[in-house]
Amino acid sequence: MIKEKVQTYFEGLQSRITTALEVFDGKAKFIEDAWVRAEGGGGNTRIITNGDVFEKGGVAFSAVHGRLPEKMATKMNVAASNFFATGVSLVLHPQSPMIPTVHCNYRYFEQYDSDGTLTQQWFGGGADLTPYYPTLEDAQHFHRIHKTVCDRFDPTFYPKYKAQCDAYFYLPHRNETRGIGGIFFDYVRDAPGQTFEFVKACGDAFLDAYLPIAERHRGESYTEPEKNFQRVRRGRYVEFNLVYDRGTTFGLETNGRTESILMSLPPEAAWVYNFTPEAGSRESELSKFLKPHDWLELQGIV
Amino acid sequence: MIKEKVQTYFEGLQSRITTALEVFDGKAKFIEDAWVRAEGGGGNTRIITNGDVFEKGGVAFSAVHGRLPEKMATKMNVAASNFFATGVSLVLHPQSPMIPTVHCNYRYFEQYDSDGTLTQQWFGGGADLTPYYPTLEDAQHFHRIHKTVCDRFDPTFYPKYKAQCDAYFYLPHRNETRGIGGIFFDYVRDAPGQTFEFVKACGDAFLDAYLPIAERHRGESYTEPEKNFQRVRRGRYVEFNLVYDRGTTFGLETNGRTESILMSLPPEAAWVYNFTPEAGSRESELSKFLKPHDWLELQGIV
Repeated sequence: MIKEKVQTYFEGLQSRITTALEVFDGKAKFIEDAWVRAEGGGGNTRIITNGDVFEKGGVAFSAVHGRLPEKMATKMNVAASNFFATGVSLVLHPQSPMIPTVHCNYRYFEQYDSDGTLTQQWFGGGADLTPYYPTLEDAQHFHRIHKTVCDRFDPTFYPKYKAQCDAYFYLPHRNETRGIGGIFFDYVRDAPGQTFEFVKACGDAFLDAYLPIAERHRGESYTEPEKNFQRVRRGRYVEFNLVYDRGTTFGLETNGRTESILMSLPPEAAWVYNFTPEAGSRESELSKFLKPHDWLELQGIV
Repeated sequence: MIKEKVQTYFEGLQSRITTALEVFDGKAKFIEDAWVRAEGGGGNTRIITNGDVFEKGGVAFSAVHGRLPEKMATKMNVAASNFFATGVSLVLHPQSPMIPTVHCNYRYFEQYDSDGTLTQQWFGGGADLTPYYPTLEDAQHFHRIHKTVCDRFDPTFYPKYKAQCDAYFYLPHRNETRGIGGIFFDYVRDAPGQTFEFVKACGDAFLDAYLPIAERHRGESYTEPEKNFQRVRRGRYVEFNLVYDRGTTFGLETNGRTESILMSLPPEAAWVYNFTPEAGSRESELSKFLKPHDWLELQGIV
């Protein structure tokens, strides 16, 4: 059965990622919060705080099943029925504003008719990077790793999923993307066996996509005004997650596990009325990166 | 015409409130950001920051008109048509966690048919208080002032609008109210002249409802952990405004003026995974207040 294999893969991925992040951080360890869902299944949410690199991070695994709640079925535009869902989801908020925040999430969903026959199954997921003091090199590294994975399966995947990422992680009220993007796909119903291989390859690429970027910047010093800039920008992260992110709003509206859903929020955020970086400052450079660029074609950002 | 009178009243109310708040603060002054709406009308948003009492506060006035945007009409479940809307709206975030955050908003809306004939008009508004270290005395004062105003017009107003406030300022995913409530009403279409008198009485009561509470606590000292508790609780304020507040989500979805809409967000907020105050601490008392209580009947909180 594919669902057991997917669940086992996600559980293993969570462990490999948290182990590697602890080694990388060198100071803080993840705390595990295991939970059981009354209606079926459960999960464990691992949280790291006050690390040398990570100010706050969460890496969550869950596998839940039972009767699809009415409210959830309506939202998903499907009939209420039995379901199974498993996924791994992470957000890392580094201490240093020089290191980007990163998010990734891979998930699998099954639905059954009243006889228990599988009627629908799909994968979804993606990864995206949110720098505060961005560099083209970082953006290109993150995209190159994901493009390489995509190209191993289908040359149409990277352009399609990169464009979907730009469209999804977008704040219309700020007219800017959340960060420099990555890949995003959802409701992929075709060829589940092959799609599972693709999702595994994406999950396995996460550490390669992110850690070299974090490593490159972890030794850089930063000032209190730069930390404050990070807080203001984290406010935009909060705005995206609470106003637009489907996983978050869907989870909150369907009585999901609040702490696991909101583990993505930053440790601190700030809002300054009409915040505008000084012209020519490093902070003013960021807006040039918050647009859908063909990163791998760019020679520079103007 | 009532609309000119309402607009003039709101404009005057904004000025009386900002003047009184500046005197009360004693240190900071409001900065005015006046803006013009391309499609008709405009407003001015006044912001106070880094005051002796107020860490960040906004008091906004607007009067806009023109063709109701399609998206807005759909949201409001009315036909697209010409409209006029005016309102005053404020949120004050004090420096001290001992002083509650406060919000109030009063608004008036008119809609016309293609001949310019008035087809609909309504008032809405309310005021609510969000303490961090609450006292029953504060809650009772805030409610007593509003009940007195309501009772002058109709003895059914206070119980009805108080209950609507509790229902509206509620975070289902936290199972708590935003604060200790106040009053809230919307789409009041009856007797516009009389309702305008009621709205004026409510607006005029704001300073009496809030300043004595702020005055009572402004001299109290507080510790850094208490300030941190305020930051975490301000996170809940952000959650309410971005996830549930109709004014905010409606404004963002209909291309409203982002900075004016988001002036309600606190200067700083924090998120701590699974934050739970120590049993018996003053912080643990707050949850007892975040339920719909009949404040004016209570002898104490248990």
